[in-house]
Amino acid sequence: MRHGGDLAAAEAAFGRPAKGWLDLSTGVNPHAYPLKPFSATALTRLPDPEHVKQLLVTARRAYGWKPDVPVVAGPGAQAMIQLLPYLRVRGSVLVIGPTYGEHAYLWARAGHQVREAWSLSHAEESQVVVLVNPDNPSGRTTEPDVLLKLAADLAKRDGLLVVDESFADVSVETSMAERVGPKGLVVLRSLGKFYGLAGLRLGFAAGDAEMISELSGELGPWPVSGPALEAGRAALADDAWAVSTRLQLTVEAMRLDAILTDAGFEQVRGCDLFRTVRHPAAGTLHRQLARAGVWCRAFDDRPDQLRFGLPPDDEGFERLKAELSSALKTAA
Amino acid sequence: MRHGGDLAAAEAAFGRPAKGWLDLSTGVNPHAYPLKPFSATALTRLPDPEHVKQLLVTARRAYGWKPDVPVVAGPGAQAMIQLLPYLRVRGSVLVIGPTYGEHAYLWARAGHQVREAWSLSHAEESQVVVLVNPDNPSGRTTEPDVLLKLAADLAKRDGLLVVDESFADVSVETSMAERVGPKGLVVLRSLGKFYGLAGLRLGFAAGDAEMISELSGELGPWPVSGPALEAGRAALADDAWAVSTRLQLTVEAMRLDAILTDAGFEQVRGCDLFRTVRHPAAGTLHRQLARAGVWCRAFDDRPDQLRFGLPPDDEGFERLKAELSSALKTAA
Repeated sequence: MRHGGDLAAAEAAFGRPAKGWLDLSTGVNPHAYPLKPFSATALTRLPDPEHVKQLLVTARRAYGWKPDVPVVAGPGAQAMIQLLPYLRVRGSVLVIGPTYGEHAYLWARAGHQVREAWSLSHAEESQVVVLVNPDNPSGRTTEPDVLLKLAADLAKRDGLLVVDESFADVSVETSMAERVGPKGLVVLRSLGKFYGLAGLRLGFAAGDAEMISELSGELGPWPVSGPALEAGRAALADDAWAVSTRLQLTVEAMRLDAILTDAGFEQVRGCDLFRTVRHPAAGTLHRQLARAGVWCRAFDDRPDQLRFGLPPDDEGFERLKAELSSALKTAA
Repeated sequence: MRHGGDLAAAEAAFGRPAKGWLDLSTGVNPHAYPLKPFSATALTRLPDPEHVKQLLVTARRAYGWKPDVPVVAGPGAQAMIQLLPYLRVRGSVLVIGPTYGEHAYLWARAGHQVREAWSLSHAEESQVVVLVNPDNPSGRTTEPDVLLKLAADLAKRDGLLVVDESFADVSVETSMAERVGPKGLVVLRSLGKFYGLAGLRLGFAAGDAEMISELSGELGPWPVSGPALEAGRAALADDAWAVSTRLQLTVEAMRLDAILTDAGFEQVRGCDLFRTVRHPAAGTLHRQLARAGVWCRAFDDRPDQLRFGLPPDDEGFERLKAELSSALKTAA
């Protein structure tokens, strides 16, 4: 599987489960931000550029970006990940990974020389460094101060640091936030994970003035839909929801930890939106779980890993626990 | 103004009209397709690739494309217009115009040599020809047979014909429909105009296998939002709505014609989603109308033209008639 969330493909391979799918294949918050119905004009009118400006003001405040830092909105952080490789002269790119596969794939597709490594120690040999923070699926975090220094080093030689903060909402201290400046650094954020609005397609890029200006040009006049505009303005302004949801996700991630540890997994890593485990029979486990209607994330290039998103409710937690126990017995 | 639909900018320049805006600045159908509320999963789940495939099947049927013609969906026809110039080696591009400004702008921005001309007679000197059919804002239509021959000529020398059919829903006989083949031609369609769903951001490209495959790669895994997926599948499957809406728009466009002709405009052109007129004092008229809360489309590069979309109701038609009469008296 190349990505999570592909239930129709799961159903084609494993049939429709009697109890329906328990989809844990993404790192999307199962308790999505509670949206009001969209206004009729959100669907019918061309998104107004003035409303986009207001969305960017709200995003700056929510993500801790300074008021003068360039920001652009688009249809998902993925849209930025698609475009960034074309905005740089072909050169050497270091992707800190293995990580979310689209980064290395798209930089290579655009003709860059891509190297994947787990350490930042050879960053100075690259013109572009890409890092997901917290990382997906490992959950590893990198200190903002380390990244700030790296960005400054890269900026000195016209390099670029890309920090994908798609999961940083549940790890606030990890975010570059107010450290984002207008040169050498691009930070990506998304409404898809923490806000649980993956279908909405809304993401942001902030930082390097030249890159943001070019991204804006490539995205064109109406990249953000009316529904995404309305939802984004409401969700990003709601600090109380964000605070209480962070607490809730922390508690639920601990509950997921307990289930995975009790099941016998030894290395349980991740962030509060998913946990990743290693198991020599991960492929067999993935199939066993799928046959029981539990759809987790397997990785073609890392056959010993599985990633589990948070179950949406008690029933989901209990079902995961039971099915994991059965699957592990069979795989043993 | 670069585009219509920018009411917030209109308000910044002219203040908020006492009776609210009568927005005629776009060619968007004021009677949008009546959507049901979106399912919760449309917002929360990553759009499923299988659902996108089903959307493409529905689009093929609605637009008359053969089942084996390559098709891709994205966030508006604009997304395709943004990307196409990068999928061709830099060369000479003929844009049939003046027309929708983004075509010439974006091909030039990507480094092509762009020529704008009103006639197809020099098409053989270009590697790429771009045409909007029916044209916006002129309303001029070009016979599909003429375009089919042009596409075949271009295909012979690895050229490309791009036909933007964003307004072809109200001019069915103008559409390439089942003539679209897998080489040398790309046709663009949109849910923004006829279906009145401009905020939704949903458009299609069909035709040339290589171009569609590359567009698909550049658009990435989830370019279409969950709401756009659900709405598109419902709207494009509803033949009865399309048939009755075409009739309704024809009647309303005739009513708009009568108002514009009675007001003294001599050349009234367009399609059933808008009418374009010429007037030596178009700029003054535009400002007069704006001060009265009627927002029509002016063109920076064609100061003698104004475009009017359809008013949404009787009140809108009467208001346009009255304000046009006042504005013309003042401008005279």
